[in-house]
Amino acid sequence: MKVLVINAGSSSLKYQLYDMNDESVLAKGLVERIGMDSSILTHKPTGKEEVTEVSEILEHTTAIRKVLDKLVDKEHGVLNSVDEIQAVGHRVVHGGEAFKSSALVTPEAKAEIRRLFDLAPLHNPPAISGITAAEKNMPGVPQVVVFDTAFHQTMEEKVFLYPIPKVLYKKHHVRRYGMHGTSHYYVSRVAAEYLNRPLEDLKIITCHIGNGGSLTAIKDGKSYDTSMGLTPLEGLMMGTRSGDLDPAVVTFVMNKEELTISEVNSMLNKHSGLLAISGSSSDMRDITDGLEAGEPNATLAFEMYEYRLRKYIGSYAAALNGVDVIVFTAGVGENSAVVREKVCENLTYLGVEIDPELNKIRSGEPRRISSANSKVEVLVVPTNEELVIARDTLRIVEESK
Amino acid sequence: MKVLVINAGSSSLKYQLYDMNDESVLAKGLVERIGMDSSILTHKPTGKEEVTEVSEILEHTTAIRKVLDKLVDKEHGVLNSVDEIQAVGHRVVHGGEAFKSSALVTPEAKAEIRRLFDLAPLHNPPAISGITAAEKNMPGVPQVVVFDTAFHQTMEEKVFLYPIPKVLYKKHHVRRYGMHGTSHYYVSRVAAEYLNRPLEDLKIITCHIGNGGSLTAIKDGKSYDTSMGLTPLEGLMMGTRSGDLDPAVVTFVMNKEELTISEVNSMLNKHSGLLAISGSSSDMRDITDGLEAGEPNATLAFEMYEYRLRKYIGSYAAALNGVDVIVFTAGVGENSAVVREKVCENLTYLGVEIDPELNKIRSGEPRRISSANSKVEVLVVPTNEELVIARDTLRIVEESK
Repeated sequence: MKVLVINAGSSSLKYQLYDMNDESVLAKGLVERIGMDSSILTHKPTGKEEVTEVSEILEHTTAIRKVLDKLVDKEHGVLNSVDEIQAVGHRVVHGGEAFKSSALVTPEAKAEIRRLFDLAPLHNPPAISGITAAEKNMPGVPQVVVFDTAFHQTMEEKVFLYPIPKVLYKKHHVRRYGMHGTSHYYVSRVAAEYLNRPLEDLKIITCHIGNGGSLTAIKDGKSYDTSMGLTPLEGLMMGTRSGDLDPAVVTFVMNKEELTISEVNSMLNKHSGLLAISGSSSDMRDITDGLEAGEPNATLAFEMYEYRLRKYIGSYAAALNGVDVIVFTAGVGENSAVVREKVCENLTYLGVEIDPELNKIRSGEPRRISSANSKVEVLVVPTNEELVIARDTLRIVEESK
Repeated sequence: MKVLVINAGSSSLKYQLYDMNDESVLAKGLVERIGMDSSILTHKPTGKEEVTEVSEILEHTTAIRKVLDKLVDKEHGVLNSVDEIQAVGHRVVHGGEAFKSSALVTPEAKAEIRRLFDLAPLHNPPAISGITAAEKNMPGVPQVVVFDTAFHQTMEEKVFLYPIPKVLYKKHHVRRYGMHGTSHYYVSRVAAEYLNRPLEDLKIITCHIGNGGSLTAIKDGKSYDTSMGLTPLEGLMMGTRSGDLDPAVVTFVMNKEELTISEVNSMLNKHSGLLAISGSSSDMRDITDGLEAGEPNATLAFEMYEYRLRKYIGSYAAALNGVDVIVFTAGVGENSAVVREKVCENLTYLGVEIDPELNKIRSGEPRRISSANSKVEVLVVPTNEELVIARDTLRIVEESK
């Protein structure tokens, strides 16, 4: 079965086409600047040259039509006919409490995703646009929604509730949801497989750190706790997000600077984190360059980032009463040896010891970076959220037959 | 030297009179309902009966005059003359970055405390009222200010800064300050003495948990990190305070419930924490009663409280790369065996093991509750902030001579 995976943002649409017989990627690409002048479609068929096309793409329906055109294009295509696509899988950020796992797209499912606009005003509306656009372009092809929050629905009440009046949970669904669930799920499975140990026996802390970032404490293969909360703002210091703060800072700053709710949210989500402290970049590659060059602001940004990440690992070790495996993944986790090194340097009390040579290796494969003496396995596992979406799509479509 | 220690709140004033020759308490007491009808003065001279007096006390100057009257009262007094009081020590909540230790009261010091009203609008103004009232009643007697924040001024920049635009620190002094410094300082010293080990060799986590609560990670005898931040709202779940939250919860709730800044602050400081989850009480004694009776809301409140406290201990173990001593203090820390037991139950990965029998003992003395096998010393140390204030007052007055 061939499965098209779609990740729709407000002005972008990423796609990957899988042949699920061998889980190979036939093509992937990206439409950028949807709704703006000169939208850009970048299409990469496996084994062929990447192609870029600039045109006017005003909404997601046109974006998907252009993608399908490319997939069957004589020169750049990988399919004879669009009919070969037997299922479409969509990434959806917020599944609330309604979606505890992936689901077939039905009118009821779409209505439920719409009800969740409130909790994910930036993310769920474009997902609905993507779904609708796919339905228009591929009528009758089954579609599946895969949620960033679903893996975390196993959290216990004591973990997901905030210590605030309960009416806010009942009336407005204020609670911890967590994000990056597909990634935390995937890398924890790959880690157990790599170690050749039963998932159920392992206490795992997965560090998904990219431009955004979250940690998950995993017990019995299930998400026990995770650092993002009601929104992706909570938790780690990120590229442009503050992460954890004294909640009173929010109102103190609103008051002092006469900011509106939307202005303070924008400040905390877009102008904080590494960017605010370094004063120059939200990209960990720039920060570590600055660190190596001894630039004081980049050094401070790095130290704060490392310290806050390390404290989260420590708190999840306490949450799980120990840790067997620490997994690094996503942009920073997979590529920044210095972040991994510095975080682990002060985790020797847990018995963590990384091998500096192993830590330096760059590869697209899961790998161990801890030494033979380490009491905790430390792994780097490249994440693959698209593959999880494709697998879930295949499974659910087959189950629904 | 006899030293009067004063802790002035907006409508209350606590006092203790020390004879610093042997650090004995000669008398202590409390004035409540200042500025309201029928203020209440409760006075307890050591070795004599407690006495209560109801009268109209409109402001702090009258309150202190009434206290001094009691201290020299023929029947209930402990002094022949007010002149025997040779120094007054005041507890002040917020010393900002200006006060890194206790200080003699001067016009400059008072001006600086006034400049900090902004950061502690509820706490610093009554402290100034207390100082002024003491000056009026005891002209010429040296006075000293002792700050809740001072002990934490050793925190490094990477620890005390928030990952938000730096202008907020430069312009509005937004950073982590921490509270309960006098208590964290005191119990860490007592712990090292009790263990007969040099303070400098110990990694200590002090848990000051009462109605409010904060943890401090102590290295080389200095505060390395602490859980309260710009305000006392950050950190642990408390009696009526939420502690840590997704910062976006603040604006989400303001938006949904159309709350003002002051209303949301009031909700998070006065109507959250144990009170919000239990639905009935902010007092840990009621919560543990409910836990024992199997009452679901109290049980959930207890579990959330324990879980969040335990995660903080874990995060500070990572901050310090290990922990040698965990100290419990303040109302809950000193008296709730079940909180201590449940927190330590899931810290066995650190080598923590408490002795259930030792944990049950109630006493006003510092004591070990960990077993002989425990890799971490777990102590209960009754706090004594007044004694630290009296000692600092004596030292500073003598140094200034």
